[in-house]
Amino acid sequence: MMTYAQLDASELTKIRDAAAAKLKEYASAGKKLDLTRGKPGAAQLDLTSGLLGVIKDGADCFSEGGYDCRNYGILDGLPETKRLFSELLGIPSDMIFVAGNSSLNVMYDTVARAMLYGVYGSTAPWGRQGEIKFLCPSPGYDRHFGICESLGIKLVTIDMTPDGPDMDAVKEYVENDPTVKGIWCVPKFSNPDGITYTDEVVEKFAALEPAAPDFRIFWDNAYAVHELTDEFVPLADIFELARKYGHEDNIFYFASTSKITFPGSGVAIMAASKNNLDQIRPILSHQTIGFDKINQMRHVKYFKNADGIMQHMKRHAAVMRPKFEIVNRIMTEELDGLGIAEWTMPKGGYFISLYVCDGCAKAVYDESAKAGVALTRAGATYPYGIDPRDRNLRIAPTYPSEEELECAVRILCEAVKYVGACHYLESK
Amino acid sequence: MMTYAQLDASELTKIRDAAAAKLKEYASAGKKLDLTRGKPGAAQLDLTSGLLGVIKDGADCFSEGGYDCRNYGILDGLPETKRLFSELLGIPSDMIFVAGNSSLNVMYDTVARAMLYGVYGSTAPWGRQGEIKFLCPSPGYDRHFGICESLGIKLVTIDMTPDGPDMDAVKEYVENDPTVKGIWCVPKFSNPDGITYTDEVVEKFAALEPAAPDFRIFWDNAYAVHELTDEFVPLADIFELARKYGHEDNIFYFASTSKITFPGSGVAIMAASKNNLDQIRPILSHQTIGFDKINQMRHVKYFKNADGIMQHMKRHAAVMRPKFEIVNRIMTEELDGLGIAEWTMPKGGYFISLYVCDGCAKAVYDESAKAGVALTRAGATYPYGIDPRDRNLRIAPTYPSEEELECAVRILCEAVKYVGACHYLESK
Repeated sequence: MMTYAQLDASELTKIRDAAAAKLKEYASAGKKLDLTRGKPGAAQLDLTSGLLGVIKDGADCFSEGGYDCRNYGILDGLPETKRLFSELLGIPSDMIFVAGNSSLNVMYDTVARAMLYGVYGSTAPWGRQGEIKFLCPSPGYDRHFGICESLGIKLVTIDMTPDGPDMDAVKEYVENDPTVKGIWCVPKFSNPDGITYTDEVVEKFAALEPAAPDFRIFWDNAYAVHELTDEFVPLADIFELARKYGHEDNIFYFASTSKITFPGSGVAIMAASKNNLDQIRPILSHQTIGFDKINQMRHVKYFKNADGIMQHMKRHAAVMRPKFEIVNRIMTEELDGLGIAEWTMPKGGYFISLYVCDGCAKAVYDESAKAGVALTRAGATYPYGIDPRDRNLRIAPTYPSEEELECAVRILCEAVKYVGACHYLESK
Repeated sequence: MMTYAQLDASELTKIRDAAAAKLKEYASAGKKLDLTRGKPGAAQLDLTSGLLGVIKDGADCFSEGGYDCRNYGILDGLPETKRLFSELLGIPSDMIFVAGNSSLNVMYDTVARAMLYGVYGSTAPWGRQGEIKFLCPSPGYDRHFGICESLGIKLVTIDMTPDGPDMDAVKEYVENDPTVKGIWCVPKFSNPDGITYTDEVVEKFAALEPAAPDFRIFWDNAYAVHELTDEFVPLADIFELARKYGHEDNIFYFASTSKITFPGSGVAIMAASKNNLDQIRPILSHQTIGFDKINQMRHVKYFKNADGIMQHMKRHAAVMRPKFEIVNRIMTEELDGLGIAEWTMPKGGYFISLYVCDGCAKAVYDESAKAGVALTRAGATYPYGIDPRDRNLRIAPTYPSEEELECAVRILCEAVKYVGACHYLESK
């Protein structure tokens, strides 16, 4: 098989026209397919049905200290919920505070709080320090970038490598520029590339000597136990490594059960050093009397321990893996060897990252949309929504049914072929 | 009976010494009694047990549009939850956004958001406008004041009258001082005095013509349906009146089910004009993907409609009223006619407000503490924790058992008598 680059104009024209005809056919079929959302599918939600009824009455609401979860109090979480996350993530219980239903909300609040009050070590609130910056390993998670954009923090793109962010660039910025206040990391099964940071990369994060006294690594371990296969992918312990360097205060750690139990009705946590928590807690005590402890208890009663969660995640994987395999199989059938697309087949997380030819992602997005397939907006995985090479598309295979997914990926592949043929025709 | 003011020094000395002896006796009994917390008692929590099991499985989680509440989405609340609050509070559904578990959190976030972004009509974020002020009708709710203190907003005390805040003072400040950005109101069964603003006061709020283009009335209707007796106490409709004056944008309205279902596991709402919501929603969409919709659904399924809530509140009242009556009865027995204390007997809400002689509240707090009764810190109901006349104490009768409550109030009364006698002795 020849790559598109090797084909002559007449062959490319034939491919282009054939793809155009198929896309037109799809469009007239009037399908509405959606690959945009990193949302669990219905079958995944059903896996957790038992959570809903696990607390039946008041007697189920007493915490181990005899505390009634139905009432006010306990700002930073039930001891048993802390322990559950501690066991799951390997973080000491006393570094964890258990929050509400959304780690995104905790992250936003953490940046907003830093803008208003600073963090431990700040000489002034971030909002009063003039222009400040966050580093954004990219492609990355659009909602991370959105938090900073919303709050007027400048975004700096850092390239991702197969090992994690380009640590030379990170070190250069962090250690020399005191206006760099943070970096967004999804260290395991990164969104969208599915990359897990190597031990060396994690150690380099731990070793960073920031120029700013109030720099923080935003360590969003969103997919800590979200393997798609039986192979557990280990992630080095950032806190343990940071302790070695005396840099524990540099880390804000986040996680949630959004993709373990129910998105929007799960439990989120933040973990941080004593110095950080001591700075945060009094401010938090002005923000709220406490989070939803009944839901915290619901999670504890349902899972019992970390192993309960790990078993549960295997059931998620059993539903999710076939969907990832469908995407991979169809893309391989349709696109392999054509030199117009590469894609990831991750070992965990929620996304397949598709790279098309430079300058082609927006066009693929548009052609797919016209044919009935919604993709995450091209560019969304980069700061300010601008992919400098216009080549990355994020595919979220979990929400559609297998049948819809097959159909959507066939259409997407046709769009990739159409745009790829056009692309090479232009250079003829 | 003669008042303490009418007694001579020897009589006062006798009273003082008798009270001192009793307090000593109480202290040596080593009781730990607590009148600090506006928390529902255990019997109240049990009233809502049925809420816990009302959602049994996934089939119970579908919103009326067919939307699966177990998944991401629907930023501003389920339509049926909006409707429930709409019916309960008489606010159009499209003015309501349903948030998480805590209206305090929504209020904090609303002030923090204004500091960072401004509100509809702001020429700059509040945080970039130099010194700004909030008016604080006092005595009032310490956590309202705490939000402003935490965020560096200056607090201005406004006197409460039996009709609501002193509206001449409010109007004078709001209409002449553009640095006045807000006022905290608990318009029904105010914390701690139990005052419901008269129609005239509410209309005066609606009619305010603020000097600042970004002034807001923070209308915390925390006790909207929290009557203690069969007499429903009406509150004028602030939005309706504001519409009449074209001032709908001036109002931020808050409420929650914290004291209807479970504190910390209820549902909170904010209501505001279209202009305000249009300014808030895009910012909110950076903060979170959505709040806990399963818990929203739980509340809808449990109550069904506003009448369901009203019936439920009667059951709360039946548990709470006897506790308020105990406080009133014992205080009447112990203190009536002595000229050293006045107190409220509210028709709703969570508090009894006790006024002792000027300069005596802190001493009563201290003497009570020594004898085993914890009270809300004297001064807490005023900005910066300073009661200018040092005379107000907030009594929260709901959390202790009736037996504990009786004992605690007896001790408190003894402390009032002791301090009252000392007070009048000093002036002899």
